[in-house]
Amino acid sequence: MKGIVPPMVTPLKSQDELDVEGLERLVEHIIKGGVSGLFLLGTTGEGPGLSYALRRELLERTCKLVNGRVPVLACVTDTSFTESVHLAQVAADCGCHAAVLSAPYYFVPDSPELIEYVAHITSQIPLPLYLYNMPGLTKVNFSMDVLKAAMDMPGIVGLKDSSCSMLYFHQVRALIGERDDFGLLVGPEEMLAETVLLGGDGGVNGGANLFPRLYVELYKAAENKDMERISRLQKEVLAVAHSLYTVGSHPSSLIKGLKCALSLEGICSDVVAEPFQSFRSKEREQVASLLGDLKGKIDTALN
Amino acid sequence: MKGIVPPMVTPLKSQDELDVEGLERLVEHIIKGGVSGLFLLGTTGEGPGLSYALRRELLERTCKLVNGRVPVLACVTDTSFTESVHLAQVAADCGCHAAVLSAPYYFVPDSPELIEYVAHITSQIPLPLYLYNMPGLTKVNFSMDVLKAAMDMPGIVGLKDSSCSMLYFHQVRALIGERDDFGLLVGPEEMLAETVLLGGDGGVNGGANLFPRLYVELYKAAENKDMERISRLQKEVLAVAHSLYTVGSHPSSLIKGLKCALSLEGICSDVVAEPFQSFRSKEREQVASLLGDLKGKIDTALN
Amino acid sequence: MKGIVPPMVTPLKSQDELDVEGLERLVEHIIKGGVSGLFLLGTTGEGPGLSYALRRELLERTCKLVNGRVPVLACVTDTSFTESVHLAQVAADCGCHAAVLSAPYYFVPDSPELIEYVAHITSQIPLPLYLYNMPGLTKVNFSMDVLKAAMDMPGIVGLKDSSCSMLYFHQVRALIGERDDFGLLVGPEEMLAETVLLGGDGGVNGGANLFPRLYVELYKAAENKDMERISRLQKEVLAVAHSLYTVGSHPSSLIKGLKCALSLEGICSDVVAEPFQSFRSKEREQVASLLGDLKGKIDTALN
Amino acid sequence: MKGIVPPMVTPLKSQDELDVEGLERLVEHIIKGGVSGLFLLGTTGEGPGLSYALRRELLERTCKLVNGRVPVLACVTDTSFTESVHLAQVAADCGCHAAVLSAPYYFVPDSPELIEYVAHITSQIPLPLYLYNMPGLTKVNFSMDVLKAAMDMPGIVGLKDSSCSMLYFHQVRALIGERDDFGLLVGPEEMLAETVLLGGDGGVNGGANLFPRLYVELYKAAENKDMERISRLQKEVLAVAHSLYTVGSHPSSLIKGLKCALSLEGICSDVVAEPFQSFRSKEREQVASLLGDLKGKIDTALN
Repeated sequence: MKGIVPPMVTPLKSQDELDVEGLERLVEHIIKGGVSGLFLLGTTGEGPGLSYALRRELLERTCKLVNGRVPVLACVTDTSFTESVHLAQVAADCGCHAAVLSAPYYFVPDSPELIEYVAHITSQIPLPLYLYNMPGLTKVNFSMDVLKAAMDMPGIVGLKDSSCSMLYFHQVRALIGERDDFGLLVGPEEMLAETVLLGGDGGVNGGANLFPRLYVELYKAAENKDMERISRLQKEVLAVAHSLYTVGSHPSSLIKGLKCALSLEGICSDVVAEPFQSFRSKEREQVASLLGDLKGKIDTALN
Repeated sequence: MKGIVPPMVTPLKSQDELDVEGLERLVEHIIKGGVSGLFLLGTTGEGPGLSYALRRELLERTCKLVNGRVPVLACVTDTSFTESVHLAQVAADCGCHAAVLSAPYYFVPDSPELIEYVAHITSQIPLPLYLYNMPGLTKVNFSMDVLKAAMDMPGIVGLKDSSCSMLYFHQVRALIGERDDFGLLVGPEEMLAETVLLGGDGGVNGGANLFPRLYVELYKAAENKDMERISRLQKEVLAVAHSLYTVGSHPSSLIKGLKCALSLEGICSDVVAEPFQSFRSKEREQVASLLGDLKGKIDTALN
Repeated sequence: MKGIVPPMVTPLKSQDELDVEGLERLVEHIIKGGVSGLFLLGTTGEGPGLSYALRRELLERTCKLVNGRVPVLACVTDTSFTESVHLAQVAADCGCHAAVLSAPYYFVPDSPELIEYVAHITSQIPLPLYLYNMPGLTKVNFSMDVLKAAMDMPGIVGLKDSSCSMLYFHQVRALIGERDDFGLLVGPEEMLAETVLLGGDGGVNGGANLFPRLYVELYKAAENKDMERISRLQKEVLAVAHSLYTVGSHPSSLIKGLKCALSLEGICSDVVAEPFQSFRSKEREQVASLLGDLKGKIDTALN
Repeated sequence: MKGIVPPMVTPLKSQDELDVEGLERLVEHIIKGGVSGLFLLGTTGEGPGLSYALRRELLERTCKLVNGRVPVLACVTDTSFTESVHLAQVAADCGCHAAVLSAPYYFVPDSPELIEYVAHITSQIPLPLYLYNMPGLTKVNFSMDVLKAAMDMPGIVGLKDSSCSMLYFHQVRALIGERDDFGLLVGPEEMLAETVLLGGDGGVNGGANLFPRLYVELYKAAENKDMERISRLQKEVLAVAHSLYTVGSHPSSLIKGLKCALSLEGICSDVVAEPFQSFRSKEREQVASLLGDLKGKIDTALN
């Protein structure tokens, strides 16, 4: 898997109801942007905040809507081993192409425990598996010891890294070496250009829900080592992150900002799942104002 | 609620099967020790690591076994609002006396978001509710702002604090003031004596799974301000924590050590849920050796 | 050493000039309160923020003013081994009774490195030495391994703990056991009562600059296990911490609040050393208002 | 200032004595590698661990040895405002070209306090000033608010960032925008290529003490956007970091490994300042073995 794989937001009508029409529009909007895949139920997708019934419904509906046009990855992380395996089975049944698994995010296993956990769960998951490094939320890093062990386990096909650390990225790249059967996707969109330039396979970038073509084009520029175009497009990616994701200054501003902007664009509802709440009118107005500005500049940069 | 409310370990035959006979023996063992209640599915109970079916089964079976002899509290925390409400409904149906709720442990709400979350979920939970402060695992502190707001919400009856901080304890005590309708239970057993001496209502202490009478007697000594007896009994409580919970030096050693010791005592199985694994023979021998020593000293101290 | 050893604030006329008259009044004010010693150049004394010339002058002047009425302890921690030894020599020459040493606060030694460092420096310091555990500012805990090694080094006579952790306190107490030649003083005043009740030797409490008698009386009540008097006096100690030290909500509010209150009382100047700056008029008015209230309540509680 | 500015290690004969011959050889070795400047008394230079007399002697001797061939930057950070100003005066007298200042590393100022501190000290430092962001050791980030204010203060000419964060880097780059009078140097050598490719002005890289030409050539390749050469050279820079800096797995392994390798190369002594101690024979043998391997590969990559 190479390219942009947006971590899709989950359109909601309410805490426990999908925005079905919004989902359809969102899927079309993203695929039209030229992405290489879709990543469901991750952090941006608020996966851990949704009921199991809703998670299953999302996987089923989205796979049907995508209908094989791009691969679909399903995040199956759970604090419960058994529920992770259940969800992976659902994902396989729906036709997802891979599962994605972070450390279970309540307890804190050390490296030897984590190696055993990954070995046990991999053997029961009926899909190729990406590990998902998200230490800011799981409190656990997949250390090089864990990755070295995991790279020898059948079924593990890559790593999605959201550590925000180039030091970690370079350690992983050195560990992968020439093995071209192990993929490396990187999370924060601010690091898309440098990671692709220096050996990463692509980006799992929240902003690609809203402006998929911008991220796809930046990925291509990085793949082609077109430094001038990188500079032009990365500036806009940074502008999205530095403006839209900082409205209100909550740690949750990224999700709230994205959903608010998607709603202003008429794509899907802005409802976010608890423990968060949608932007109120003041922040919504700020987003509207930023959005107009961003859209103009992105259009110019892309053309 | 006053006194010792052990956070019961969940006896397991395997990752997704209860040790039903072990559960019966454990419940009797704990109740015989004179405890004031039972706290199910908390951190020591590995709640987040268990499937929902198993969590429900544990609530049902335990409530039946307890049969009203002591109040039962059920931890209903979940990353999903909807699943928390479901589990609280199950707990109410089983006859639990209260629910216990920490911050949802994946996303990190700030204080204003957390206040809204608590208000929303409290209105849907059909049981009196204890908040559960566990910042080491949830990454979120219930700040004084949140607690002040929560104390005015109908249905919230107390706080279980596992922050391990006396500074926090004293802030909460000052906030509670003379309100005797708001309880304060404290987690780490090393702090049982001082918190009860200085205004706490009791302890939620893992070691009370194994030696319930020791903790109950220390609680009583603290309630009676019997400093000499406190000194004698606290020494043994500290010996449990400093020896049994440090075997193997994992963050998970507390749970592993307790279950291993309970298994050596013939009470229940030592199976722990993923992402952890039971002690192997080397650690098991260490636990056996420590246990013999501890039992002798505790018997002496209690008599 | 037993009882209250206030970490004396350093009265300043400006960044690099002592408030000599203020120092004299402050020393008399504190000693009159019945304290057991004086601790100079610690965190509350802004030691690391002062020039070496000023640190030396403070040691000399204070020792002369105290004139043997109580023991004087000098904090000699420095990022430079050589400067620590120099300052310890000055302290010895002035007649200080002991030196106090935390981990050097820039680099982060691990436990084996820290053991060697402590052994090396202890051999060159011409005074009995207290270790000073202050992980919040030094980024390093004196682990039980380090303490165990240190307790066997000639010259080390005790520990001053400012970790704010009762878990750590109980571990240290268990390590000390029956050795009555190793003292244990505890920093945050909110924990004075419980630590003295449970085996600590006294408190190094910032508030004792302002209200020395309050802290001395609380110490005595704890030593006498007079739970009723503890409750009455601890309430006022907590009121000081929860009000005076939170004005302006800076991490530096403790130092700023204390110096501002001392200045309002006519004892010494409110100048604080960089990187902090004194309270402006708004916060000063807040402090004045809180102070009036506190003084009334403390008088009542003491009488 | 553009290019590689090595943070020079401080050659020591003992804790408080310079290795004068080693210093001479080291300065020549580094300058011969084509570097753009020298940075003295930083973290790699163990500045905070040295006595003031030694810091002054190092500045004087090094400036004489360099004799204007490249600019010399002096780190003047100190917990004491007054001592920082003193050291900056010495640096100016020796002919240093700029001073470098991190947050004072004991107390933790918040952003408003830090802005005032920087304004006050800048007005008293007789040299152009680089701010030095080193949150891992100072516990304080220069936030965008602080940087925005600092960029308007006369005398501040740039930032040296050792946060290891590309998110921070991109925020700073966006803040700088088109202002070409404000430089941005980045610390960890693993990030040299990407930061220069994406708008940084150069690297302050510890490994350039040992292999200056490697770092200079990687800088040039990045400046020329020569992706193939970047890939070849960066691989060796990463090999240095992933091997030499991890011997013994101490946080101090970088300094110990560098000094040990320089000593094996006959350049200067391997003595490190307390609280660290030089590698013992076992680690020294490991370094010797790694070094042979690294030198061969670096020679190949450079030619």
